[in-house]
Amino acid sequence: MVAKTRALVPKDKLLLAGSGCEGTLATMRMCDEMANAGADALMVVSPGYYKAVLNDRALIYHFTAVADQSPLPVILYTVPACTGVELSVSAVATLCQHPNIVGMKDSTGDITKLASFVAVSKGEQFQVLGGSAGFLLAALSVGCSGAVCALGNLLPHQVCQLYQYFTRSNSPSETPPCNEDSKQQVSLGDKFTASQKEHELLPSGSSNGKQTSLENKIECARKALQLQHELLAPNTAVTKTFGIAGLKQAMDWMGYYGGPARKPLMPLLDADRQALRNIFVKSGFLKD
Amino acid sequence: MVAKTRALVPKDKLLLAGSGCEGTLATMRMCDEMANAGADALMVVSPGYYKAVLNDRALIYHFTAVADQSPLPVILYTVPACTGVELSVSAVATLCQHPNIVGMKDSTGDITKLASFVAVSKGEQFQVLGGSAGFLLAALSVGCSGAVCALGNLLPHQVCQLYQYFTRSNSPSETPPCNEDSKQQVSLGDKFTASQKEHELLPSGSSNGKQTSLENKIECARKALQLQHELLAPNTAVTKTFGIAGLKQAMDWMGYYGGPARKPLMPLLDADRQALRNIFVKSGFLKD
Amino acid sequence: MVAKTRALVPKDKLLLAGSGCEGTLATMRMCDEMANAGADALMVVSPGYYKAVLNDRALIYHFTAVADQSPLPVILYTVPACTGVELSVSAVATLCQHPNIVGMKDSTGDITKLASFVAVSKGEQFQVLGGSAGFLLAALSVGCSGAVCALGNLLPHQVCQLYQYFTRSNSPSETPPCNEDSKQQVSLGDKFTASQKEHELLPSGSSNGKQTSLENKIECARKALQLQHELLAPNTAVTKTFGIAGLKQAMDWMGYYGGPARKPLMPLLDADRQALRNIFVKSGFLKD
Amino acid sequence: MVAKTRALVPKDKLLLAGSGCEGTLATMRMCDEMANAGADALMVVSPGYYKAVLNDRALIYHFTAVADQSPLPVILYTVPACTGVELSVSAVATLCQHPNIVGMKDSTGDITKLASFVAVSKGEQFQVLGGSAGFLLAALSVGCSGAVCALGNLLPHQVCQLYQYFTRSNSPSETPPCNEDSKQQVSLGDKFTASQKEHELLPSGSSNGKQTSLENKIECARKALQLQHELLAPNTAVTKTFGIAGLKQAMDWMGYYGGPARKPLMPLLDADRQALRNIFVKSGFLKD
Repeated sequence: MVAKTRALVPKDKLLLAGSGCEGTLATMRMCDEMANAGADALMVVSPGYYKAVLNDRALIYHFTAVADQSPLPVILYTVPACTGVELSVSAVATLCQHPNIVGMKDSTGDITKLASFVAVSKGEQFQVLGGSAGFLLAALSVGCSGAVCALGNLLPHQVCQLYQYFTRSNSPSETPPCNEDSKQQVSLGDKFTASQKEHELLPSGSSNGKQTSLENKIECARKALQLQHELLAPNTAVTKTFGIAGLKQAMDWMGYYGGPARKPLMPLLDADRQALRNIFVKSGFLKD
Repeated sequence: MVAKTRALVPKDKLLLAGSGCEGTLATMRMCDEMANAGADALMVVSPGYYKAVLNDRALIYHFTAVADQSPLPVILYTVPACTGVELSVSAVATLCQHPNIVGMKDSTGDITKLASFVAVSKGEQFQVLGGSAGFLLAALSVGCSGAVCALGNLLPHQVCQLYQYFTRSNSPSETPPCNEDSKQQVSLGDKFTASQKEHELLPSGSSNGKQTSLENKIECARKALQLQHELLAPNTAVTKTFGIAGLKQAMDWMGYYGGPARKPLMPLLDADRQALRNIFVKSGFLKD
Repeated sequence: MVAKTRALVPKDKLLLAGSGCEGTLATMRMCDEMANAGADALMVVSPGYYKAVLNDRALIYHFTAVADQSPLPVILYTVPACTGVELSVSAVATLCQHPNIVGMKDSTGDITKLASFVAVSKGEQFQVLGGSAGFLLAALSVGCSGAVCALGNLLPHQVCQLYQYFTRSNSPSETPPCNEDSKQQVSLGDKFTASQKEHELLPSGSSNGKQTSLENKIECARKALQLQHELLAPNTAVTKTFGIAGLKQAMDWMGYYGGPARKPLMPLLDADRQALRNIFVKSGFLKD
Repeated sequence: MVAKTRALVPKDKLLLAGSGCEGTLATMRMCDEMANAGADALMVVSPGYYKAVLNDRALIYHFTAVADQSPLPVILYTVPACTGVELSVSAVATLCQHPNIVGMKDSTGDITKLASFVAVSKGEQFQVLGGSAGFLLAALSVGCSGAVCALGNLLPHQVCQLYQYFTRSNSPSETPPCNEDSKQQVSLGDKFTASQKEHELLPSGSSNGKQTSLENKIECARKALQLQHELLAPNTAVTKTFGIAGLKQAMDWMGYYGGPARKPLMPLLDADRQALRNIFVKSGFLKD
């Protein structure tokens, strides 16, 4: 699948491939295969089966061994809702120093921990990414570089726009037009040149002296908050409430290809599909 | 205790009294007693013993019944780490419309839910307060009015300063300087007399043209982020890691009276006291 | 309430009073009041609010301090589903040696822990009681002395019968017939006067040679298993599924007084009441 | 690995192969491979990654689809401590009727649920197996057919003996000598003839008229309880406390091959190894 995606994704766009098995050796092998298939970097999810003993010591060993061997930069991925496993702040303080670990994605929504990851990795070439559009604005506000969001599959422009409203409202210099795409956060340090993407998102004419003015920055902050609020209900619906099947259904509605979820994930029941649709209609992302 | 505190707290400062029992009737009685003792508003923690059946229906009934009877404005308080009980977003959407429920404090640290509480209560006289200094900046960034923070007991100036850095960086108008009152966030709407108190908190003379400049706002945002990062380790230490005993020990160190924790909470072991001290030294809040 | 119950309960029956507050001092005071009201022994539930720090050290301190002061024998009570707090096996190994701690009730349903409590308290005057009819047979099979069961409020004869089927099937000596007193299991050791009460419970004349025969014992074991299976669905319904309100509703059906649950516990919804009734009908405890 | 094991395991011994992937199709494929490798039956663990949506509907679909296709009898396996996913009692009531689902192994230790699984599958060719030696006696007492125990890797005779003490104490007929091995419980209905194994465990001379006497049965029950108590501490140590690494270490001590755990599971720290050894010495299974 990575190879097929690579064929479709232009070379100047980053291709992050998800990796990660229960075993360290199996994970290493998978990383090699992903590299051969053309990925640019690897998002390695933590193991989770033997969660009772997957403590800091085991996880530091695991990620270090994988990163030592990996031909590509590694991004740590923790998603306790799926794996039951968390990285502690002190484990991240250690792992962020590894030259081949360039960042992490954390999906807990525990914003205090996310902020702590940013705090302890300050000064390292290490980017902390939020794991959901539900707390994108909060993640950015505590110093995260960006986010990898399920909601980006169906509302990519809105997720990108929220990111840009935030950066524009906080930029000390004149705010540039939106000429970097929502994946820019994964710029992975010096070696990468992730840029010049999705120019079309915001009209280039929108950047001028006025935008850098205080009024515009305040307006951007206001819009960021409003957009975050608007994205909350749809985001919760396609993640926590209705899961992957809800996400794919909503992608279909938005004009993308969602298709059926891989079994044993079940298609939505009719009542759930209607409830999901109501949320999107009420949020203004779908017409009745 | 409320009566004694009232005697010490000037009339122009809000006195919030914690209330909340397992039973609805017992809670009502406690609210009456708190009012007689001189509180200005009541923070009513949810019941938690029969958590398996304390669902939305039960919690909406409970808080509505209490607020109907309460002689003082009610602030809902949910702290799942202690009670095991959460309010859902839709329950808050209902409760925020009650004329005598003026806000809520939520200590989960689930910033997505906190943002959702703000979103669904928009337009109501209802303030959403964060429940910890660990996510104060994030809470403010998603629209919370303020926070009630354990850390405020030992680092009140810093917690207040973080709040003010944030408000100054986001204020469209001229920004006053920091006034170091961590309780100011709890202004309980127009109907409440506390709204008048707040005016005095911020001397109008303290703002000038320079402070409202773009550079100053950007600087405030930068300082807010830095201060939030600095407060993370001490905050985690006196809440999650070492609990009330840690909090009280740190208050002693900071020149306040912490004293012993109420049994069965145990005093810190020597090793834990040293570990706690190291965190405060490393964070720069204590000298070695 | 204890005083009123004492007036109704004959002196030769044990009256266990539930005690237990968040604070150690408050718990001591409550124990004194319970003793004055006429209780025979105290079931002291663990505190639970500050669950993050209520570790072995704190719980051993708490229960030891309470038992030191208590004028009546103390039975430890742990119910993690309500309090979020558990006693470890090693904590019980310590506490069971206290001369005024005569037993414990544990409602986790973690039968491995229950068996471990029995194993580590062997040789002490300490009885381990199961906390639910859902695992009564299993609890007895791993060496528990008995149980305190919510289901005993509505199906007391059946719960008692299950206990007696088990004891008869395992008794090396002649076995008495069922005496239908679900509280008999709580005999609190030699020092306690209640030990005399128990003698009367089982009329010695009721046993004869036939009852002790192998066939009868095997039949008792078979009946115990069958009865346990029959009690499972009703028990789950009035505990986990429908809680206190379900328990009280079922008591009403069984000819006892259940009455309304204390608010904020809600009365059953009509659909739930019907579902509960169906379970009792299907189990044969109610007619359609 | 299954093929290699098959080469070592005599044809008259059951070879259960563990199967189970996150996806239904992948699980089907794995089942085919296991069958080709020579397994006799398949133990299919539930998926667990998308635990939030792996409800009854999804799990019934999954196990039904797998069993429909599987060339070998399927045993359901639920282990919430690893997967975070549980089968409900009503899901088991449905699945137990499938002609190719012959049983289940449940490792929760929730003995009420285990008993309920037995109760709802009565009359079906369906065996409920406990998932740990920690609650083997309790599982048998509520009607389970047997157990699959990690502890069997290091103390196989003792685990088997506990099973046999129980069956002998409950057998209505003359108790046969211990001529069936500890895996007999997985006899999987008519089609299988699992017998004549491990004759040597108990001397054949031990079966005579006396054994069937009441005294012998009572003695067996007493010994079963005592042995269960003795196995508790070692079992907890090699499962919950020290995990797979502890299990393998203890196997080495017992004269079997444990070897290193698969990474990222870490070898025991020296202090942990000593603590583990102390538990085995104190329990009498190792000399100091």
